[in-house]
Formats: sequence, structure tokens, C-alpha cells
Amino acid sequence: MRAIEWNQKQKTLQLLDQRKLPGEVTMVVCEDQHQTAEAIRTMVTRGAPIIGITAAFGMVMAAYRAQAADVAGLRAELQEAARELNASRPTAVNLPWALTRIMRIANVSTDATAQLCERLEAEAIAMAEEDVAINKRMSEHGASLIEDGDTIIHHCNTGALATVDWGTALGCIRMAHEQGKHIQVLVDETRPRLQGARLTAWELQQYGVPFHIIADGAAGHFLHSGQAQKVFFGADRVAANGDVANKIGSYMLALAAHTNQVPVYSVFPFSTVDLSLANGGLIPIEERDASEVLGIQLKGQPAVPAGALARNPAFDVTPQHLLSGWITEYGVIRHPFEANLEQARRTAE
Amino acid sequence: MRAIEWNQKQKTLQLLDQRKLPGEVTMVVCEDQHQTAEAIRTMVTRGAPIIGITAAFGMVMAAYRAQAADVAGLRAELQEAARELNASRPTAVNLPWALTRIMRIANVSTDATAQLCERLEAEAIAMAEEDVAINKRMSEHGASLIEDGDTIIHHCNTGALATVDWGTALGCIRMAHEQGKHIQVLVDETRPRLQGARLTAWELQQYGVPFHIIADGAAGHFLHSGQAQKVFFGADRVAANGDVANKIGSYMLALAAHTNQVPVYSVFPFSTVDLSLANGGLIPIEERDASEVLGIQLKGQPAVPAGALARNPAFDVTPQHLLSGWITEYGVIRHPFEANLEQARRTAE
Repeated sequence: MRAIEWNQKQKTLQLLDQRKLPGEVTMVVCEDQHQTAEAIRTMVTRGAPIIGITAAFGMVMAAYRAQAADVAGLRAELQEAARELNASRPTAVNLPWALTRIMRIANVSTDATAQLCERLEAEAIAMAEEDVAINKRMSEHGASLIEDGDTIIHHCNTGALATVDWGTALGCIRMAHEQGKHIQVLVDETRPRLQGARLTAWELQQYGVPFHIIADGAAGHFLHSGQAQKVFFGADRVAANGDVANKIGSYMLALAAHTNQVPVYSVFPFSTVDLSLANGGLIPIEERDASEVLGIQLKGQPAVPAGALARNPAFDVTPQHLLSGWITEYGVIRHPFEANLEQARRTAE
Repeated sequence: MRAIEWNQKQKTLQLLDQRKLPGEVTMVVCEDQHQTAEAIRTMVTRGAPIIGITAAFGMVMAAYRAQAADVAGLRAELQEAARELNASRPTAVNLPWALTRIMRIANVSTDATAQLCERLEAEAIAMAEEDVAINKRMSEHGASLIEDGDTIIHHCNTGALATVDWGTALGCIRMAHEQGKHIQVLVDETRPRLQGARLTAWELQQYGVPFHIIADGAAGHFLHSGQAQKVFFGADRVAANGDVANKIGSYMLALAAHTNQVPVYSVFPFSTVDLSLANGGLIPIEERDASEVLGIQLKGQPAVPAGALARNPAFDVTPQHLLSGWITEYGVIRHPFEANLEQARRTAE
């Protein structure tokens, strides 16, 4: 079972409800772009690669359910759907990347409306399949950096749940494990939404990779005391200079690793790179509802006094100089990021 | 109401059960040293200064309830009680400090047993009163570093709950607020036991200091983006070179602050200094039960998959070079720590 499944007959999108894992495995069905945008906003599904693909299928549903009588009208409706989907979450650039890719086809196509719908659907399906292939390619590159005996600290969730399948940073770890390397993972629980404790732990159990969950603040202790040899995390948007916006907490983790000479890698497909932004300071950082911080419970009781307020930035920016490398489908990119990424792309293509 | 109250008539110790705050305000009564050790171990009470004083009263109860017929026998029983209390938690040096102070009196006294019991009781009461006076002195020194308009990041709980009264790092913040400075606090929730979200938030509400709770991993974002001007935390043991063992997460916080040129201060009484240890690498770091990490809940449901394991170091060490200064009852100590602390002590005494 994948976290995202397209129903070709009914033209509906089925998403694994990741808010309810690991306690419940239930699906949410989206029948149009509005429900899709809502599912992204409320984090039924999450993770930069999968929300790009989810948005692409949102566009397909918008196309099939459009009221327009001609292609011009359909394009206008699609443009409106793209605006709505793009507004669902601001930080991951895979969302506008996927919407742009769909809109480019809609805008240049000379098909009639019915054929155009089919072309958009075929494109979204191709994007989903590409995502899996890209993840496996990335994971091969990343696994080559992992050595037998390594303990790896991993932040948030970047596995099969965050992608169409296989995963990015967690994909590298899974690949190294399948290659027979004896590794273990320290899983940052990743407050406030606990994607590490809930989702990464659940995936690692299924893959048979030994792991321990840790409080996010504990990573520094393990790094400083020589108990971790690598740090792997994903990315939600990467600026042209290699600065990486990723789940809140990534910056402090990368800083502690870099300070203690532990290599840190960010793993992402090229679709996560935003060459239009010179550096990470220009990446929009989503601030989510305070209830995500305040809703924590211990023994069934609220842990926080009534009336307390919270701040809840969902992402932070890791400056490029803290990273040892960037792992993409084009290989392991070393400093300087932009020039070496460009060269790796040319070599690969 | 204080978090620790000695009942002079019944010779029992009443402790505010901090595990149940903020939901329930209930007291635990300790009637002997065994119950006292258990209360420290299970964190009915927590915080380096208060567990020192709690242990001192544990010794007083051991003295009053001793079976020994003579002073030599009483000393032997007290030595055994000190061993038991000292083993209750390993990291905070205030615990052996308090036990040593009580044992020194027991060992040199020429009193008969009944009088010795009274002398030990008087000493424990004096230690408790000294703690309050020392905290207020420290807080005056610390408040002098806080400027109008500051946003301060604070880790764990270091307030009235962590001391006999008033607090250490949180005492500085409270003092600055009472001096009329307009400040606000970003409260690290402090996983896994949430002393920030549960206890510091509760105290700040009572003092009327504006605050927002944040996930521990979010501090780096606020520091990197210029949204915090100071960092204050406590200490559980300070080595001779100024390395500070404090609640897990302090190291990453100090590192992020130092990297972003935000001053970081550790606040503690001289009783937290362990001059017998050359550096922080020699401080014993307690690892507590995995259930503290795994027991987190969202909407009444366990957040972690069944069968998952956790690592749970309760403290980490912040290297001295990351700190801007150390705040003690003798004033603000700047680099180098040991020489300047010694000079400040001589000046004060």
C-alpha cells in the first residue's frame, strides 16, 4: 500500500491519513481540488515530494470536474485551482513545481477538453512514477556514504510516507540496510507533530532497521559524545546557494553535527531546488497553529496550563556551510552547491 | 505555598508533586529518608537546588527515626541514609553537597543524640533559608543583564519550583519583570518531561510575564532570525573549568545562541559547582527510563508505535566557551571561570 493512490476509474485520490498513524491506518478520499488543498493544509499527507504529487492529482480532478465548455475556460478554471492548491502550504517548493508542470501542459496543449484531461492525468501519473525512480536513484547515492556500524540521526519523516514510495533521507538508510550494512538510527521525535516518533519509527519497524527514538534536544548529546556518525534529513526547499529549509529543528541538529565533525546530508529530488532564490533567507517559513504545540498530553491530561500561548514555526533554514553534501538523483553534490549541481545534471542527462 | 515545606512538629517533609502540575496541585508527604529518596528518584520534586535541600531534610528524618542507642550508632545510620539519598539521582551535585554538609556536623558534633538531631534540623532549615537569600542575590545580578524589550529563551524549569523559593535563571527573569522591564519569554517545552511547558509556563502565568511556549527544536529559528536577545538556563553541576551539565537540550540551545552572537547565561548557586572535576566530560550523565520519551500522547492516543525503543539521557554538557557568563550569588562571572569565581567569592566574603 502506498500513501497516495490514484483511482483511475473514479478519478479520485486516496491518501493515507498520516495524522492518525501509527494508531490507525485509514484513508481519506479527495474528490476534487478543494478537498485536496484541505488535505494538504491539514496534513492528512505531508512531506515535500508527496505534496507535490498530491497537488498534481488535485489539478487532474479540477480538470475532470470543470464546468467550462471550451479549453480557454478549462485553463481559467485550472489556473484558479492552481492558486488554491498553491496556497495550501507555503514552504515546500515541490508544490508550485508540480502545479507549474501541469499548467505548462494545459497552456501549450492544442487538445480538446476531454483529451486535455487525459493528458494531464497521464502527466500526474508519470510524475508519481518518476518520484519513485528518483528516490531509488537518490538512495543509491546516499547509501554509498553510509558505513557498516554507523549510527545515523534522522529528523522528521522522509520515508515512503513522505513520497510516492521509498523515500529520500530515510530511503538512503533503508537502502544501506538492504545492502546488508549493520546500522542503527536515532530517530528525532520531531516536535510538535512527532513525525519521527509516529511515522519514521513505524516505517523503520517495517523495514527491520534497529532504532531508538530520542527527544529532539538529545541529539547534541549523542553527537558531542561520539555516539552518532552521520546525520540525514530531507528538504522542503533548497535555495540556489544550497541553504536548506526543512522541518523545524533541522538547523540546530545540523549545527551540532557540524560542530562535532559529524557529516550532515540533506536528501531531496531536484524538484525541491528553487534556483530563483539566492539564499535561504528568502524562503517563506510557514507558522502553523499554536494548538500543535499546546495539544501535547501526558497520561491523558493536557501538559500545558490553560491560557498559555505558543509560537509554531514549521520549518527552519540550515545554512549551506553546515552541510557536508546534498544528495539528489544526480549524485552527491559537494560544495559549492550550485555549480556542482549544474555539472552533475549535465553529466547525468 | 512553597514547593518544599518542613513540618517541625511532626518532623515530616511536604513536597509539591511536580509530576502532576499544572493539572493538579497535590502534596506528597515524606516521613523518612527512604520515602525522600524515592521522591527524588521519581521526580516528585526536581531541580538541582531543591533536591539538595530535600536530601538534607531526608537526613534529619533519618536522625529522628534512628534506632541507634548512641552517637556512634547514629552516625553509622546517617552514613547509610546519605548513601541511599545520594544514589537517588546522579547528576546534580547539590545532592552530595547537602549530604556532606549535614554529615560534617554529625561527624564533628560532641552532642548527645537528641541534641544532634536538633542541630541537624536547624542546619537543614538554615540551608533552606540560605537558598532563598542566595536566589534573590543571583537574580539581582542576572536581572542587571536583561534589557527593556528583551525576548529571552529559557530552558527547563528553574523557578520557585526548582528551589526553596524564587528560582535561579527564572528568578533573574522574574526580577527583571518586577523591576518594570518589558520582557517576554520563549519557553522551551523541554522534552521529554516538559518542565518548560508544564512548570515554567505555570510560574510565568502567576508572575504575569508574557510568554510563548516553543518546541525545543524551534529555538534555533528564533535565534538565527534575530527574534531572541538572551538565553538563560540553570545548571545541575558545573565543572572547575565552567563546563555546565544541565537539562538535556541545553547544549544545542547554547550552541545556537553562541553561533548567532546571542548571550547565553547559566545561573546557579555556588553549591552547584564541583571543583573536584576538571571538566564537564567527567560529570555523570543520568539516563532515565525510556517510558519518559515513549509515553507522549496526542488526543489521548499513544504517539509512538508499540514495541519502539528510546534513549533518554536526562542531561547534557555545555562546554564553557559557549557561555557568555555564569551568574552566581557572588556576581556575574566572566571568562576564565575558575579564577574569576574564586576572586568574586573572596570579594564577597
